[in-house]
Amino acid sequence: MPETVEIGLGRSVRRGYHLHELALVPTRRTRASAGVSTSWQIDAHTFSLPFAAAPSDAVVSPTTAVEIERLGGLAVLDGEGLWSRYEDAASELASLGPSTAALQEAYAKPVSPELLRRRIRDLRAAGVTVAVRLSPQHTVELADAALSEGVDILVIQGTVISAEHVIANDEKSALNLKTFLADVDVPVIVGGCGDYQTALHLMRTGAAGVIVGYGAHAGSSTDRALGIDVPMATAIVDAAAARRDYLDETGGRYVHLIAYGDMGSGGDIAKALACGADAVMLGEPLAFAAEAPGDGRFWDVTASHPRVPRSVVLSVEDDERPTFEELLLGPAHDASGQRNLFGSVRRAMAKCGYSSVKEFQKAGLVLHSGRP
Amino acid sequence: MPETVEIGLGRSVRRGYHLHELALVPTRRTRASAGVSTSWQIDAHTFSLPFAAAPSDAVVSPTTAVEIERLGGLAVLDGEGLWSRYEDAASELASLGPSTAALQEAYAKPVSPELLRRRIRDLRAAGVTVAVRLSPQHTVELADAALSEGVDILVIQGTVISAEHVIANDEKSALNLKTFLADVDVPVIVGGCGDYQTALHLMRTGAAGVIVGYGAHAGSSTDRALGIDVPMATAIVDAAAARRDYLDETGGRYVHLIAYGDMGSGGDIAKALACGADAVMLGEPLAFAAEAPGDGRFWDVTASHPRVPRSVVLSVEDDERPTFEELLLGPAHDASGQRNLFGSVRRAMAKCGYSSVKEFQKAGLVLHSGRP
Amino acid sequence: MPETVEIGLGRSVRRGYHLHELALVPTRRTRASAGVSTSWQIDAHTFSLPFAAAPSDAVVSPTTAVEIERLGGLAVLDGEGLWSRYEDAASELASLGPSTAALQEAYAKPVSPELLRRRIRDLRAAGVTVAVRLSPQHTVELADAALSEGVDILVIQGTVISAEHVIANDEKSALNLKTFLADVDVPVIVGGCGDYQTALHLMRTGAAGVIVGYGAHAGSSTDRALGIDVPMATAIVDAAAARRDYLDETGGRYVHLIAYGDMGSGGDIAKALACGADAVMLGEPLAFAAEAPGDGRFWDVTASHPRVPRSVVLSVEDDERPTFEELLLGPAHDASGQRNLFGSVRRAMAKCGYSSVKEFQKAGLVLHSGRP
Amino acid sequence: MPETVEIGLGRSVRRGYHLHELALVPTRRTRASAGVSTSWQIDAHTFSLPFAAAPSDAVVSPTTAVEIERLGGLAVLDGEGLWSRYEDAASELASLGPSTAALQEAYAKPVSPELLRRRIRDLRAAGVTVAVRLSPQHTVELADAALSEGVDILVIQGTVISAEHVIANDEKSALNLKTFLADVDVPVIVGGCGDYQTALHLMRTGAAGVIVGYGAHAGSSTDRALGIDVPMATAIVDAAAARRDYLDETGGRYVHLIAYGDMGSGGDIAKALACGADAVMLGEPLAFAAEAPGDGRFWDVTASHPRVPRSVVLSVEDDERPTFEELLLGPAHDASGQRNLFGSVRRAMAKCGYSSVKEFQKAGLVLHSGRP
Repeated sequence: MPETVEIGLGRSVRRGYHLHELALVPTRRTRASAGVSTSWQIDAHTFSLPFAAAPSDAVVSPTTAVEIERLGGLAVLDGEGLWSRYEDAASELASLGPSTAALQEAYAKPVSPELLRRRIRDLRAAGVTVAVRLSPQHTVELADAALSEGVDILVIQGTVISAEHVIANDEKSALNLKTFLADVDVPVIVGGCGDYQTALHLMRTGAAGVIVGYGAHAGSSTDRALGIDVPMATAIVDAAAARRDYLDETGGRYVHLIAYGDMGSGGDIAKALACGADAVMLGEPLAFAAEAPGDGRFWDVTASHPRVPRSVVLSVEDDERPTFEELLLGPAHDASGQRNLFGSVRRAMAKCGYSSVKEFQKAGLVLHSGRP
Repeated sequence: MPETVEIGLGRSVRRGYHLHELALVPTRRTRASAGVSTSWQIDAHTFSLPFAAAPSDAVVSPTTAVEIERLGGLAVLDGEGLWSRYEDAASELASLGPSTAALQEAYAKPVSPELLRRRIRDLRAAGVTVAVRLSPQHTVELADAALSEGVDILVIQGTVISAEHVIANDEKSALNLKTFLADVDVPVIVGGCGDYQTALHLMRTGAAGVIVGYGAHAGSSTDRALGIDVPMATAIVDAAAARRDYLDETGGRYVHLIAYGDMGSGGDIAKALACGADAVMLGEPLAFAAEAPGDGRFWDVTASHPRVPRSVVLSVEDDERPTFEELLLGPAHDASGQRNLFGSVRRAMAKCGYSSVKEFQKAGLVLHSGRP
Repeated sequence: MPETVEIGLGRSVRRGYHLHELALVPTRRTRASAGVSTSWQIDAHTFSLPFAAAPSDAVVSPTTAVEIERLGGLAVLDGEGLWSRYEDAASELASLGPSTAALQEAYAKPVSPELLRRRIRDLRAAGVTVAVRLSPQHTVELADAALSEGVDILVIQGTVISAEHVIANDEKSALNLKTFLADVDVPVIVGGCGDYQTALHLMRTGAAGVIVGYGAHAGSSTDRALGIDVPMATAIVDAAAARRDYLDETGGRYVHLIAYGDMGSGGDIAKALACGADAVMLGEPLAFAAEAPGDGRFWDVTASHPRVPRSVVLSVEDDERPTFEELLLGPAHDASGQRNLFGSVRRAMAKCGYSSVKEFQKAGLVLHSGRP
Repeated sequence: MPETVEIGLGRSVRRGYHLHELALVPTRRTRASAGVSTSWQIDAHTFSLPFAAAPSDAVVSPTTAVEIERLGGLAVLDGEGLWSRYEDAASELASLGPSTAALQEAYAKPVSPELLRRRIRDLRAAGVTVAVRLSPQHTVELADAALSEGVDILVIQGTVISAEHVIANDEKSALNLKTFLADVDVPVIVGGCGDYQTALHLMRTGAAGVIVGYGAHAGSSTDRALGIDVPMATAIVDAAAARRDYLDETGGRYVHLIAYGDMGSGGDIAKALACGADAVMLGEPLAFAAEAPGDGRFWDVTASHPRVPRSVVLSVEDDERPTFEELLLGPAHDASGQRNLFGSVRRAMAKCGYSSVKEFQKAGLVLHSGRP
């Protein structure tokens, strides 16, 4: 029985838990980290690291996508980002001011389907797995451009997505995920979501992967602006229950869970996997990289919303920014827990005695209130 | 069964929850925010936004009342504020010092019933819904002046009000709410209160609306001075239970709940509605406005108490203060969650799939302990 | 059943609550504060305020004792303080350095029974209720001096006291409370204690009052040094249960509970009373007073311990220190909740509808986790 | 039944508690601290204080080991520390930079078995109980050197150790604790661990003592890097249950529990003992000492990890650093709770009425959420 609390007379609500309230508990054997595999396979694509770089213009560009794939991850380009709005997106990025208003102005320029096509062609030419993110609002309009150029993985992602969007009078053509996905040949990842029911409905649309969470980070204000928050540990566990039930109801279709939000360290990632995620999506932690297009700043797609912006532009404090390689694979030369993210995950798995991510989803956890 | 805890041998108390401990959980469909109505109707008065501006001299003046109504809300003038004490209240406001002692001195000048009458006539002349707040202590003395000038909505509001006030030896004429309300023809809103029992008793006095909470904000010290605090989520849910029970016992009289306190962002407002409020009362968040009479400062009626002042004068930090319009309807150009309050509420409702405030009162909630 | 938690396999512990986790909930009638009595009677002594000034040299001197009694409280002089160690204690106080080492040195001078006698004579001459505190360690040695000079109320107080002290080899004459109290004619207050069992045993020694808590304040480190802490709300409720049981077993002997610790505001005091205290003991809050002998600094008896000092010397920040009268009876001219302490208590009682402290011990409470 | 929480659908986890969430509750008699014994005996070795100095180069050197033993504790030299890597370790210590990279470089120099032998010979010559720590990874390689030189107590200690280490392809000879310990004649202490199952398995290897915790301190980032954390109170209580069960299954073999982590004050130590520890291991608190080799800085063995360093170098703030003697035995001249650690423990035991550590393991505890 999930834990519920009667917050007032006649109103019971679930209690949700964040990753930072949990810790791994090694309870059995240990093994050397060399004997641990962190590989992740979704559809026909295999990655040596269980992670996707988030569709933030501050993290993924046509250039960094190549490096991120080389290091073992999947880079998701924002199909509605600056690269699809500006011919010379690199210059635009370089001159972008840090204020919300500056972001809103830069992203006010319309998306050009032709530019989107061109970015995809460039990525294909570079030989990487082409993954592009579209918003639920513009998928109907832009998906053709993306798909016809040969996207490998399509990511349909908003703060909140649902399998059942009610059309308003002024919406000409809202996205019906189920109908839409029936006609798409490449694997589609959809999200975010935060509960069992939505996760299950999204699985039933035929998605290959479901994103859990909306990418909350230190600069997010979605909780303050909208009152929406996702206690990630509970959300991942609940979505894993949906994955199990959907596996049963389909007799074997396994939908991948990609956790997104409140992960800033190797330990956070390890705990997300231990809660049941198959992989994680990372934005802010990668903006620390020397090669990151944000050049020391991070913002996500909510930061430039024209009416309700919900993320400030974060500044990375480090003078000496590490490379993507140090961030992802190490070795780390500081003790923040924010470098060598997957070397850390590998050690966490080893100390808990697991040799694959799938097994590690059963790792021992303890709930606690934080050290002094 | 409400959650109780035995805090010591033989003494059990309820556990109460604050809005900041809750988050909305979209669990079903989504819809476009254009398809959402935030309208609020109390008695014969309809507002496009479910909110009343708090009776603080730092927020509501005869001038700003007009703007607040134009934007869709109800402005409540403090009938015992500076406008009823000073002929030239605007000058008094302009020269008011920020210390508690300065406030106490300014509010030590007696209320003039004649000035109160004149302010109401001015408001009527401006064509707005005239709402005036009186304290329970002075309602008997001042209500005649207010009502005879044609107040549309009377607000009788103190930190704590009860349907049963015990008269002390030195009180000549204490307010008996039930008797008093029987003779008043306009809708009366009374409060604040913080529990089921008091809410129900206030409903039985014939009030059109009940205020839940005492308007706690960052500068409040009622909790420290008096030990009284109102965990708003629980208080609203409990009052909603009283509304339901009173609806049943009267065969259909619906009393509006107006939440007041601990709401500084669109998300807080959305959560208050989702707990069961019909509307919210806002003070501090509106003091950010460029047009606010406090001119960058906020205080409420507890700040000038002659013997036990219970709120400091808050200074608004922004250099560039937004307009009431940006605060209430946006668009926002910062990501604090404190602007475009009702655009945010509208989006929260849309993402949760609800199209009216009344439906939204059933929105999914989760209890959690806060992001790291 | 008190709330217990199994913190690990086979080990269950009680959960305790602090005053700051509680809030008063007005749930019934209200009344005017003029109709409220805060009087406290213990044995033959009556006070208009339910409070004792703590035996701290920073608060109670032969001079301030007079003022504290004038304002309605009971002042307890530390019988082992500087006034019993130095002929010219006032000079010693004036030149006392703020470091722990300086305190240790000043208090290293032995107590002079003759000086103690003289201070008591002076207090008697001033016409106040003479209350003197002795430590459990030195009561056997010093009680004669105190009692023979006509102390009205004897306070035997350490951090922790017990009714059963085990004598070590090097202790010549340990205090046996029961035997000792059998021979004393004046009312004796003993403490501190933190649980039901100790409170009950202390009541059975014949004490007139039991102190709950050890006077924890912002500068205390007893919790860090010794691991001992007292969640005051639970401790008071438990001691009230002991009072009830002892009343029953004796057929009517009522022992007063005096709460001491974690009270810095009127609200804290009100909550301590609502948990079941008959009165409170206040140290740090009174060191704010302009007349306080600490002259802007506060320390308690644990601060000068020769081997394990457990309280730093706190500095009062205010430039303009209020008088004892403003602190205790107001009016307050700041909104900190730390002035007009008993005007605040009176208002809290009024808003909850109670007219005496004894009735107020049943006031409604809610447990919560603090405003944002 | 241990407390479990369903954090999401179908996933229940234990709830763990930290020492800082507990407080001692004196509930019975009191006694003079002179009547209290803090002695600790493990195998044939007796110490007047129940503590081991942690194998940190910042705390234990061949020189300080002598002083620590003189004061009553057991000093554990890190057999893989600078003293086993550098001929002139003292110079290396003196010139060591505070950055993680500097530490990594210093500790990159290989351990010399010959130097290790020499350090042990020196310690034997100094007449102290020789205790040396080896990591699980290098025990097979270095134990011979240590044991043949006559180590008195061998400490095999990593962040996490298990009785069952799975060998990876590139590991030539992993440690099988059970086989290894069968051939060792001196008492062996192994750890760290954090749960009942691992503790029990470690006891079954024949260890004389088991370390609970990994030495978490203010500068640790093991929780962030690996997601592993140990709520110490729960971990100690659980390990004590394993000790009890193992005692039963062996008909009387008593394995000592040594708590390591999150103890910075006398109160923390007292609470660890009251949870069931037989002794504590202290690192950071001793780095405050004037004689400490770290000379005002502290780091532990995780700080120099070549790929995932998990502790920053802490700087001790005090200008005047106390001696080991003041730290351990007092008298203290500040009120931080961090000096006279075992004088404090002795007083805590006395105030709770216990005269030996073994009895004190049953002391009363209360769970609480911290003073304001």
